[in-house]
Amino acid sequence: MSHLDIGREMYELAGKIFPLCRSLTGEGVRGTLGILSDFLKKDGLEFIIHEVPSGTEVFDWTVPKEWRIREAYIEDDAKNKIIDMKDNNLHVMGYSTPVDRLVSLDELKKYVYTQADQPAVIPYVTSYYKERYGFCMSQNCLDALPEGRYHMYIDSELTEGSMTYAELILPGKSSKEIMVTSYICHPSMANNECSGPVVLAELIKYVKSLGNRRYTYRFVFNPETIGAITYLSRNLETLKEKLVAGVVLSCVGDDRDYSIIHSRYGNTIADRSLLSILKEKEKFSEYSFLDRGSDERQYNAPGVDLPVVGFCRSKYNKYPEYHTSADDMNFISPEGLAGAYDTMVQWIDCMEANEKYKMTVLCEPQLGKRGLYPTVSQKGFRGEVTAMFNYIAYADGSNDLFEISRIIGVPPYELIGIQEKLKENGLIKAVEVDDE
Amino acid sequence: MSHLDIGREMYELAGKIFPLCRSLTGEGVRGTLGILSDFLKKDGLEFIIHEVPSGTEVFDWTVPKEWRIREAYIEDDAKNKIIDMKDNNLHVMGYSTPVDRLVSLDELKKYVYTQADQPAVIPYVTSYYKERYGFCMSQNCLDALPEGRYHMYIDSELTEGSMTYAELILPGKSSKEIMVTSYICHPSMANNECSGPVVLAELIKYVKSLGNRRYTYRFVFNPETIGAITYLSRNLETLKEKLVAGVVLSCVGDDRDYSIIHSRYGNTIADRSLLSILKEKEKFSEYSFLDRGSDERQYNAPGVDLPVVGFCRSKYNKYPEYHTSADDMNFISPEGLAGAYDTMVQWIDCMEANEKYKMTVLCEPQLGKRGLYPTVSQKGFRGEVTAMFNYIAYADGSNDLFEISRIIGVPPYELIGIQEKLKENGLIKAVEVDDE
Amino acid sequence: MSHLDIGREMYELAGKIFPLCRSLTGEGVRGTLGILSDFLKKDGLEFIIHEVPSGTEVFDWTVPKEWRIREAYIEDDAKNKIIDMKDNNLHVMGYSTPVDRLVSLDELKKYVYTQADQPAVIPYVTSYYKERYGFCMSQNCLDALPEGRYHMYIDSELTEGSMTYAELILPGKSSKEIMVTSYICHPSMANNECSGPVVLAELIKYVKSLGNRRYTYRFVFNPETIGAITYLSRNLETLKEKLVAGVVLSCVGDDRDYSIIHSRYGNTIADRSLLSILKEKEKFSEYSFLDRGSDERQYNAPGVDLPVVGFCRSKYNKYPEYHTSADDMNFISPEGLAGAYDTMVQWIDCMEANEKYKMTVLCEPQLGKRGLYPTVSQKGFRGEVTAMFNYIAYADGSNDLFEISRIIGVPPYELIGIQEKLKENGLIKAVEVDDE
Repeated sequence: MSHLDIGREMYELAGKIFPLCRSLTGEGVRGTLGILSDFLKKDGLEFIIHEVPSGTEVFDWTVPKEWRIREAYIEDDAKNKIIDMKDNNLHVMGYSTPVDRLVSLDELKKYVYTQADQPAVIPYVTSYYKERYGFCMSQNCLDALPEGRYHMYIDSELTEGSMTYAELILPGKSSKEIMVTSYICHPSMANNECSGPVVLAELIKYVKSLGNRRYTYRFVFNPETIGAITYLSRNLETLKEKLVAGVVLSCVGDDRDYSIIHSRYGNTIADRSLLSILKEKEKFSEYSFLDRGSDERQYNAPGVDLPVVGFCRSKYNKYPEYHTSADDMNFISPEGLAGAYDTMVQWIDCMEANEKYKMTVLCEPQLGKRGLYPTVSQKGFRGEVTAMFNYIAYADGSNDLFEISRIIGVPPYELIGIQEKLKENGLIKAVEVDDE
Repeated sequence: MSHLDIGREMYELAGKIFPLCRSLTGEGVRGTLGILSDFLKKDGLEFIIHEVPSGTEVFDWTVPKEWRIREAYIEDDAKNKIIDMKDNNLHVMGYSTPVDRLVSLDELKKYVYTQADQPAVIPYVTSYYKERYGFCMSQNCLDALPEGRYHMYIDSELTEGSMTYAELILPGKSSKEIMVTSYICHPSMANNECSGPVVLAELIKYVKSLGNRRYTYRFVFNPETIGAITYLSRNLETLKEKLVAGVVLSCVGDDRDYSIIHSRYGNTIADRSLLSILKEKEKFSEYSFLDRGSDERQYNAPGVDLPVVGFCRSKYNKYPEYHTSADDMNFISPEGLAGAYDTMVQWIDCMEANEKYKMTVLCEPQLGKRGLYPTVSQKGFRGEVTAMFNYIAYADGSNDLFEISRIIGVPPYELIGIQEKLKENGLIKAVEVDDE
Repeated sequence: MSHLDIGREMYELAGKIFPLCRSLTGEGVRGTLGILSDFLKKDGLEFIIHEVPSGTEVFDWTVPKEWRIREAYIEDDAKNKIIDMKDNNLHVMGYSTPVDRLVSLDELKKYVYTQADQPAVIPYVTSYYKERYGFCMSQNCLDALPEGRYHMYIDSELTEGSMTYAELILPGKSSKEIMVTSYICHPSMANNECSGPVVLAELIKYVKSLGNRRYTYRFVFNPETIGAITYLSRNLETLKEKLVAGVVLSCVGDDRDYSIIHSRYGNTIADRSLLSILKEKEKFSEYSFLDRGSDERQYNAPGVDLPVVGFCRSKYNKYPEYHTSADDMNFISPEGLAGAYDTMVQWIDCMEANEKYKMTVLCEPQLGKRGLYPTVSQKGFRGEVTAMFNYIAYADGSNDLFEISRIIGVPPYELIGIQEKLKENGLIKAVEVDDE
């Protein structure tokens, strides 16, 4: 499939999961995983779905009750629907308890959330860990309401159910792992977060196509925060032993920017590798861990200490549409999704090729006799072999692919071919096979 | 007492010691220590006064003779006093030998020191280690002298006496020490150096008020250079074993600037800690060890290697009034002294709170259930807990308070409360108690 | 001899070797070494000449056949010489095989090399490792040729002979070594490379004049690349054990710039030392190893790992005359050569003086009693002893001469005298004699 065909496929898949009312738990999550599962099954891929009972203790947290939501609206006295969850899932505050009350406008306002600095949009608001109910609407809508009596109605329940997540592992020659994860708990916002799961699903297909892959790949779809904490509480030992690098995908569907959110100290191989690829983009933004906000928070927590970074197109919380009804299917595009997908494919290709090599001969090798260097020597005619010579100069066993890329200023994916040629000619050998 | 009341108290004390004719040794030093002693006794504090005999060898130096000065003036033929030490102690060169001679103007000029680039001021000049006599006056005064005969008169003596210094130690829970020192050898200049001793005296009172203090505090009042060398020759082993951080106070009475003079390599905890506090000032200056000039020279000498920095408001040698009669009581102020005092109090508070803490839970803790986090989640409403989250992110046992402050960009004294809250909630524990 | 006299002597010597037709091998190399040998013999210095047979394997390379060239020209039908090697050695491609053919203009052009972007100059072109023949001329000359028949004539042979290089070792108190090298394979270009061998020859005389020298000095004249590789194949163990720092001299005769080409990571003592001297020049250029091009490539190759940098006036490949007939005796000058020579003399002097010293007294020493400090203390009068005080502050046994120079901002050659004075006064002692 062409670049843009893959973008269109992802956009179409995002459109399918967009309407579902996702939250930390419940049928929205299960429905979303169902759609993704159908998509992957076409390629013979099947993930494992886990259900974690409400009340399970996970580190400092407790898995919350399951939220079931059926209906939510506000009516005026004339039975006109002011807002209705049928129109937009964001109208109901996430995890709202049920309500059925007639109230004055003043009383109503106590339960209505708006985004005053963006008066035209509906904000996304939740109350996962304290029971309350609430509605969200645009400031403009609220301002237009006349005095009168209003009917607040929510048909929901919080029950002892379970929290759902999914994982899929594709084994490689090494038991060392690459992890890519995204989350499935945001209702009806396109970039945050229909984009992450669909790019992740497409990447799973790509990794499967790498027949002779080196690393084992772990893919996880989970609710944000509590999902990642739960996942870590069950898999921390394994990840500490095996994880080489991980990426959290979030907001990967627009085409305004590319962004990395660094790990706690910004010094892991996940940081160096993804950064070396983003540096080649026309435009990209580099955020320190102080700007974190997604599940990289958990993977980098003290004591967890995993080499995981965040990857976005426009970073969450840095684009005005974030966490509002303006983050809709018009905000993302096949091109935006394809750009994120291509970046992750380059990253995976480079991780697969990443080793520390050392020259097998002393002094510069004679490339000319191997057909790798022009036989006539005249000034100005050496440009095309400069990258190879520079790779050779730093192939001293102390630098991996990304470090050589950084030193010599050539993108890592352009060095893969050079590395292959030198390997074929017996001029380099790997000094470190720490991942078998 | 209010901030400014303390400033006024220090200014008044400075005014009392200003008129005394201090030098490396002699009654000026003893009188100054007497006034400071009376001030501290009101709070039940008493320092120990040491007398070191002239001729005592201290490392590469020898304690000089004691200087006694009674009278010094120049008269013209008509018995008019051209200059008189009664008007300003700076008129006599420090450590002048006696003289009683009638001389021509030309001969007189051989013994007169002026500051040609500041013609209105009397310079401060000494000759501690070579016996000579001399007078100081303004260039304007010298230029106005007519031809004629002049009477140079100094009634002084250099005798086998002693050099005087004082120390006061306030023990804490730990035998590890914080040291603050200033010097008492400069005559009749307000910033350099009535300010240092009075701020130091006030700080002693503050430390005494810290009932449950962690560190032991060592306070030293000594003559500059030879005093610090003498002190080190007697206390080096103890300081090497116990000193955590030290500050030399000098020129802490004006209100133009705040300054740090770094240690030899600028990398001790004394550097990091004081710098983290000065960085929050509206204006401050950072000087490398190449700009040193006070007793930090001795504490940082090769082989001494103590973690000591210099702290000034306007740094010595960087303000035009320095070492002249223009450094008078108008140059310093209650506000200037109070600013220096407050800075040192913040520094002491932060040193007391400085530990490496590590989180006791894996992943982010659930702050909401402890009332430390809002229960409704909406974008833009997290600001007030960002500092706590960032503290948590770097509380991994490898960073002390000042390092976390540097990483997350929050002043260390603002982190003390956060640290306390987390400790009370059992979320952090100290990983290192290397100072008991 | 005065500075400029030495420059003139070097310029004259360069003029003697300029006309010889040097290449990797052959009589041009031997003749050049003969002239240099005569020059050195006048000072009782004699180098050893090595002949390495064609076909000798040296690491990844093989010593090529020896090239003998007697005559080379192109004639038109009227027997007018279009170009003739008698006029300029660059007219024949280096290592050309023999030819004697009558050809059309179109056929001729297949064998003619020009520098199209510099139409007035003859380029320097070689084909060492693939047998072919060729001629070089200016683009203007080529463009002016009319249609017609031309006679290409080269009388040369490639025979089983040998490659020639020379070395000279001057022992010092220590067996640890300083190496300086240049190359002797470029025909009839003045800066690249008559300048390197003549500055090297003059430096040998300078080092001989250092009667009590500390280090052993190794000087090598070799053909570029294959010569350095051959030299390393025979001396690598010795160099790895003994070499402290080395410099490759190339293009050291013009007066436009001073340049350093750093070692692989730019962090050896060779880098630090030469850089500390170049930093004092009015103008200098610092090149990373990515800009390498001369024999520093071999000395810094992975596994060779020797502390060697390149030193140039205008760096090869960075001046338009490079590798063309415009690099003639007018491009270099006595002043240019003398500037390079002086720089290397300073470098050698500083290397000889380079040690890590530590103060023998604690705290600052009393310089006054040793006559090293003014006895009257007044502000503004300390400037002249600041460098000595700063040297003392960092003479803590961890810094060598170049590191102290870097920290305190004083050129290393200005610190040698200070170091001597302190040594004479017993105030410092060397902490490390790792080079005996």
